[in-house]
Amino acid sequence: MKLVVAVIQDKDSGKLLEALVEHNFKATKLASTGGFLKSGNTTVLVGVEDDKTQQVVSIIKKVCKAREKTVTTMSPIGGAVESYVPYPVEVVIGGATIFVLDVAQFEKA
Amino acid sequence: MKLVVAVIQDKDSGKLLEALVEHNFKATKLASTGGFLKSGNTTVLVGVEDDKTQQVVSIIKKVCKAREKTVTTMSPIGGAVESYVPYPVEVVIGGATIFVLDVAQFEKA
Amino acid sequence: MKLVVAVIQDKDSGKLLEALVEHNFKATKLASTGGFLKSGNTTVLVGVEDDKTQQVVSIIKKVCKAREKTVTTMSPIGGAVESYVPYPVEVVIGGATIFVLDVAQFEKA
Ligand code: NI
Ligand code: NI
Ligand code: NI
Repeated sequence: MKLVVAVIQDKDSGKLLEALVEHNFKATKLASTGGFLKSGNTTVLVGVEDDKTQQVVSIIKKVCKAREKTVTTMSPIGGAVESYVPYPVEVVIGGATIFVLDVAQFEKA
Repeated sequence: MKLVVAVIQDKDSGKLLEALVEHNFKATKLASTGGFLKSGNTTVLVGVEDDKTQQVVSIIKKVCKAREKTVTTMSPIGGAVESYVPYPVEVVIGGATIFVLDVAQFEKA
Repeated sequence: MKLVVAVIQDKDSGKLLEALVEHNFKATKLASTGGFLKSGNTTVLVGVEDDKTQQVVSIIKKVCKAREKTVTTMSPIGGAVESYVPYPVEVVIGGATIFVLDVAQFEKA
């Protein structure tokens, strides 16, 4: 038995839980407040049999993969606040940090 | 030293923390938001000396044991919304998923 | 790789996250509700290379060390509610419980 601890972006958590359920894995979502460091992050716990660990890791990597997204932002031109123009920027969203822990004992009640 | 990670139902958390304290164990309750999967769940962390691990596991199993409860629900008769009647149903409440982890190093400050 | 799980006081969490960031460690802050047991506590997760584990433990111990603080409280004199007087008391604040866990597998996405 393994316990997978994954720190992911809030916005990926719904899709991740859905994907895990579809493959019959049970996940628990912890509320991360994150402070200034990790605001917008969520920690997900998944208990899994050893031989299915890679499947869980793959699902997390696939759903939460860091990727570029074009967002439209506003920028002042020539420092004049009246002349903001919208322009596209590439930002990185998503990403996951995944810790797989050995479980010494597993029980259900 | 072991770290016990228990996912239990919110409604059992007060009673569990009380039972752990009575037996001199220190527990930390994490807020689980749970998403659609595990709404109403709470994650509890308990640090414990190796030889007392079974005692902690037993307390969790005893307090949080899945059990049936009769709840009164309403059901429409013949599809007519005016004719709902109360009737009793058995539902399963409680339950716990318990992961015991080895602690490589333990420190207090 | 190690996963450091530290239960600390809420009021020390900002300073701890700042100190960890300064030393290039990444931390995730979980919301602990704590129940009656541990109200005002926060759980912090830090993933760290084995050879830097002691540095993370030292930072946590230094920032979150239990220490005395003088607070001014009010006490009734002779049981009469009209005669409360302020007086100083030493209270212990801070403190940390630190669990270091071995990480069987570590992945980033
Ligand atoms: Ni699939
Ligand atoms: Ni007892
Ligand atoms: Ni330093």
